[in-house]
Amino acid sequence: MRAIKLIIAYDGTDFCGWQKQENPSKPERTVQAVIEESLGRMHGYKVPLTGSGRTDSGVHAAGQVANFTTSIKKIEACRFVPALNGLLPRDIRILRADEVRADFHARFDARARIYRYFFIHGRQAMPHESRYAIQLWDCPPFMLLNAYCRLLHGEHDCSIFAGAGDSSVSRSRYIFHALFFSEGNRLVFEICANAFLRKMVRSVAGTFLHYAERNTPPETLKKIIASGSRDLAGPTLPPQGLFLWKVDYRDSG
Amino acid sequence: MRAIKLIIAYDGTDFCGWQKQENPSKPERTVQAVIEESLGRMHGYKVPLTGSGRTDSGVHAAGQVANFTTSIKKIEACRFVPALNGLLPRDIRILRADEVRADFHARFDARARIYRYFFIHGRQAMPHESRYAIQLWDCPPFMLLNAYCRLLHGEHDCSIFAGAGDSSVSRSRYIFHALFFSEGNRLVFEICANAFLRKMVRSVAGTFLHYAERNTPPETLKKIIASGSRDLAGPTLPPQGLFLWKVDYRDSG
Repeated sequence: MRAIKLIIAYDGTDFCGWQKQENPSKPERTVQAVIEESLGRMHGYKVPLTGSGRTDSGVHAAGQVANFTTSIKKIEACRFVPALNGLLPRDIRILRADEVRADFHARFDARARIYRYFFIHGRQAMPHESRYAIQLWDCPPFMLLNAYCRLLHGEHDCSIFAGAGDSSVSRSRYIFHALFFSEGNRLVFEICANAFLRKMVRSVAGTFLHYAERNTPPETLKKIIASGSRDLAGPTLPPQGLFLWKVDYRDSG
Repeated sequence: MRAIKLIIAYDGTDFCGWQKQENPSKPERTVQAVIEESLGRMHGYKVPLTGSGRTDSGVHAAGQVANFTTSIKKIEACRFVPALNGLLPRDIRILRADEVRADFHARFDARARIYRYFFIHGRQAMPHESRYAIQLWDCPPFMLLNAYCRLLHGEHDCSIFAGAGDSSVSRSRYIFHALFFSEGNRLVFEICANAFLRKMVRSVAGTFLHYAERNTPPETLKKIIASGSRDLAGPTLPPQGLFLWKVDYRDSG
């Protein structure tokens, strides 16, 4: 058996997130289930796929990572890219496939996940933008937002940012970096952490924009975050501007 | 009665083009019909909308122009923007509304239409790109393509580029400019003419890429275009990368 690592992009709009639903009597369209179906057609038997983590309903990916094992011996790993893309719907594309060590695990071996949130500001978003960005009417205060971002560096109890239904045993996460920057006509919020709580990125961005609008000083926000009180968090933003951008691993695996 | 000019953007993916279908027994979703429905709800009676021209099924718009007359006196013209956007589905956005002279006609007064065709080249397109761009595997020869573009300047019989079902009386069109350029990670084909035949932009781009791939010299392509023979045209490209970008008018109207 060979172990294969995939890098996957998807348009999350028409998916109920990454994770296959447990309830088979009420099947929903998920990215994992759709790719497993294509893998099954290639192999002639069920092939389980392990993702680096779940993405919520409506969230996109530019660099989700997943792994599976295959009994197919003859073809080069990179040939899984066109083979799977030929079977998959257009809203999922395999970007890369590599053979990796047998014990590679897309979830447990991931060192860091990077998310990017895209915003349009100051004008009506075009229909072809609003599928992949959140519209803000006013230009948000960059300097203040980036001052908030600096508060996040390091290990924190992120309870304040946990979405309803988060079932994590520990809510402590290590945040490597977070920042707002502009790219073309879009504003981007990038955040990199060892792992994230459910809906955490949407809650962090919503909370930062909420307090920045009120010109709340960073010292106050620091206390609010430390309080761990969910009631003090700002709104959880909608999923359409959010992309799982990249997953980093310890070694080349 | 006041005349209102709208600038409209839409994601053409889920529309059967701009133009309302004549056959009411088989209604299809068109941009004109959907906006007329919203205008009807605002006014309490049927309000006909005149577009600058049809766009084909699947073609997008960043700057379609249309006009209608209204009996609503009290509100400023610009207030039609939020009022209509509140009623319209997310894949249509009104970008601007202005009051214009009573005899303004979005189609007959248009001096030039500009289309942009977007391409991704050299890599697998992301799902969020492939809805709005055509994927090319090889980087096309820019210099040669732009040499072809120069052949188009001026008035031409464009019969070779007429899509099936084109019913134009004359197939002569005045082309102001055409060029290929790169923008970020995308290749753009922009073409500006007084008017276009049915599927003409998709046929021009497909023909140019077809002959450029074969390294056909511009002098040969000049003869091919002059022949007017549809059989010599390259493939008509799919609609998803094409945007009606802008419509220019003689005066501020």
